[in-house]
Amino acid sequence: MKKILLQLEADPQASVFDQITAYDAGADQVLAYGGVTADEVANLVYGAMFTRGGDNLRNTAIFVGGARVAPAETIMQQVLATFFGPVRVSVMFDANGCNTTAAALVRKVAGGGALAGKKALVLGGTGPVGVRVASLLAREGCQVALSSRQFLRAQEVCHRLGADAAIQVKPLQVAGATEAAVALGQGVNIVACCGAPGVRLLEQAAWSACPFLEVAADINAVEPLGLEGIKVSDDGRERQGKKVFGAIAIGNLKMKIHRAAVQALFAANDRVLDLEAVYSLAKTLEN
Amino acid sequence: MKKILLQLEADPQASVFDQITAYDAGADQVLAYGGVTADEVANLVYGAMFTRGGDNLRNTAIFVGGARVAPAETIMQQVLATFFGPVRVSVMFDANGCNTTAAALVRKVAGGGALAGKKALVLGGTGPVGVRVASLLAREGCQVALSSRQFLRAQEVCHRLGADAAIQVKPLQVAGATEAAVALGQGVNIVACCGAPGVRLLEQAAWSACPFLEVAADINAVEPLGLEGIKVSDDGRERQGKKVFGAIAIGNLKMKIHRAAVQALFAANDRVLDLEAVYSLAKTLEN
Amino acid sequence: MKKILLQLEADPQASVFDQITAYDAGADQVLAYGGVTADEVANLVYGAMFTRGGDNLRNTAIFVGGARVAPAETIMQQVLATFFGPVRVSVMFDANGCNTTAAALVRKVAGGGALAGKKALVLGGTGPVGVRVASLLAREGCQVALSSRQFLRAQEVCHRLGADAAIQVKPLQVAGATEAAVALGQGVNIVACCGAPGVRLLEQAAWSACPFLEVAADINAVEPLGLEGIKVSDDGRERQGKKVFGAIAIGNLKMKIHRAAVQALFAANDRVLDLEAVYSLAKTLEN
Repeated sequence: MKKILLQLEADPQASVFDQITAYDAGADQVLAYGGVTADEVANLVYGAMFTRGGDNLRNTAIFVGGARVAPAETIMQQVLATFFGPVRVSVMFDANGCNTTAAALVRKVAGGGALAGKKALVLGGTGPVGVRVASLLAREGCQVALSSRQFLRAQEVCHRLGADAAIQVKPLQVAGATEAAVALGQGVNIVACCGAPGVRLLEQAAWSACPFLEVAADINAVEPLGLEGIKVSDDGRERQGKKVFGAIAIGNLKMKIHRAAVQALFAANDRVLDLEAVYSLAKTLEN
Repeated sequence: MKKILLQLEADPQASVFDQITAYDAGADQVLAYGGVTADEVANLVYGAMFTRGGDNLRNTAIFVGGARVAPAETIMQQVLATFFGPVRVSVMFDANGCNTTAAALVRKVAGGGALAGKKALVLGGTGPVGVRVASLLAREGCQVALSSRQFLRAQEVCHRLGADAAIQVKPLQVAGATEAAVALGQGVNIVACCGAPGVRLLEQAAWSACPFLEVAADINAVEPLGLEGIKVSDDGRERQGKKVFGAIAIGNLKMKIHRAAVQALFAANDRVLDLEAVYSLAKTLEN
Repeated sequence: MKKILLQLEADPQASVFDQITAYDAGADQVLAYGGVTADEVANLVYGAMFTRGGDNLRNTAIFVGGARVAPAETIMQQVLATFFGPVRVSVMFDANGCNTTAAALVRKVAGGGALAGKKALVLGGTGPVGVRVASLLAREGCQVALSSRQFLRAQEVCHRLGADAAIQVKPLQVAGATEAAVALGQGVNIVACCGAPGVRLLEQAAWSACPFLEVAADINAVEPLGLEGIKVSDDGRERQGKKVFGAIAIGNLKMKIHRAAVQALFAANDRVLDLEAVYSLAKTLEN
């Protein structure tokens, strides 16, 4: 029986990236649907629930993806609401690669060491990856601050983390290099740059001068990078006495986590691979 | 050479159900098209007709499906009109699962016994499954009545059966439980409930009190069921002295017929699996 | 690792023809996208570029097709502009089958003999196949004239061939059978009919009376054929002392070239199978 992955997303054209990655993870067939609206979800999911019986249900799974994260979250909620009792299939959420990328970044940052008690700053923290990085770091016991160019935006995201998951993250406004340097100067040990491609967030003079900074990571693969003075291929390399991680090093681990997560979907029919589950799975893999 | 199934339907998102079932039936690759308009059919079908020559044509087939039955019937007509001479591929019609479900219901009702000469009542008979159940029962020699909440609707469907296929079915108005009980009281031996999900058609007091009723079947899987007092898993179980069949028992046989029909498509390049052909094929399978 | 072909086109429903041909050529999975707009191309191509590393990149390739040639040319330009450096995959252009059909027609016409120095006339020469046939014949050293019903249309196409590829082709107006006969009478050795399906371009009396005419080919498979008095299955048959090639003979070679080209895509990650490359590949195949 073929392992079939139902890929659902709001983007008009279904992601090529996610389909190829699913095939490389061992899916036999991906059924990819773009432009999915909330009211179409139930019928698509019924097709996954009612075609294979009993133990064979594990051979069908659902991947909610695409670049547009907010409508994908609505799709994910609809998927979970459509299941009833044991008549369900495993499902993974990774719109915009946010869960696998956040898990990869935090695993890289953790390296061999402990996170608990560290001070962490997430720059560009209101995007899909940033908010998840902040969440994972906070769960691991870091004191986390999350910045946006607009204070209200950062505050809104932190309120949501508190309300939804009882996670405490401090909102910050960081609108330029100077504010970033000041924020970093507050004893920060870990900085994660989660901004948009091609946007510089921290100058080298700023991060190299911070005595407490131990680790810096950046998911931006397009020049200028978020962190001045690193390379996208840096994978824990020491620069200016700090361990730095670039977008390609993080991306390679992200791909490994992504593939392992798709494989895990087919091990049972009741997995829900959300941020926490993806991160737990990432902990079982080599960095 | 891969067995390729071209799935065509009018629904905007192509059916997941039909794709997974096709893979489980042995199709190597399904090319699924939703939102197909009548004028797009010829070009899609040319792609099936002109890519593989001679005996290899049998490795391509067409499945016309989706939930929207009327436009799917137009697509089916266009498919058949596009073929010329021996340059054709096998094609199956099963929009809304109507052919395979009707065949499964009638095969269940027939059980080991004969149908000829029985009186049959199809409640909710104007839907895609109901009209096909009525048609099959009439072909098997039953006297069939078909009901709708509106007499004119029932009459229109019966006229069409008479005009298109010379099948005599009597139209009835049944708008509630009392009318249903009265209709059943006219010596009916077989009742088939083909109404919408979650709509009660017959109360237990009504059907259990009918001395001539032998068999009752219901395709509704959502509570309240069409037949009060049965279970969706009833598979010929005796209740109140009648053999009853619920939606899951019928659905399991439907899946078996559906898979067998898809397999049969690839046995030759000239099969047309319409209601009659699907029913004939169902007769070769175990119930 | 599966050989994955990304099929991109502007037509609303992705070509069935191209998908089936790709599977028959050995692609393991086709990801077919219809209705692709220019601004969607980069993201789809990124999915092909960034999912597989190093030598594995050759297992992903792109096919730009569909019936609408002009927007497909824009898609092709966008695909090539999206690659950077060695991070690329092989790509083939064959919208409307124009490259493979033109290559097949010219290979058939060439037969065992030389083309250099011959006089060639391409009737219906402004369509996607005609202009490519004219281009290939000119590259092979023929003196080529290309006709349209409107002189300005022919002139525009010839100007473009000159400007884009330094290819000299003479524009002609041929609006009916008499003008065609006159054009053919100017010592033409090779005539290629590349008009629309079901449109007669040359009467038998005209072409059979031309003393210098050696070869005639016609891509029109729908009666009336472009060349009166030939059959679609003619494959170099002598009629009236000329070698003639009909649409099926050309089409069979086209399919062979098409499949070989798709196979060639997966041999490396940097192939660009445009008209010239497809024609070069066709020269390595038996006619």
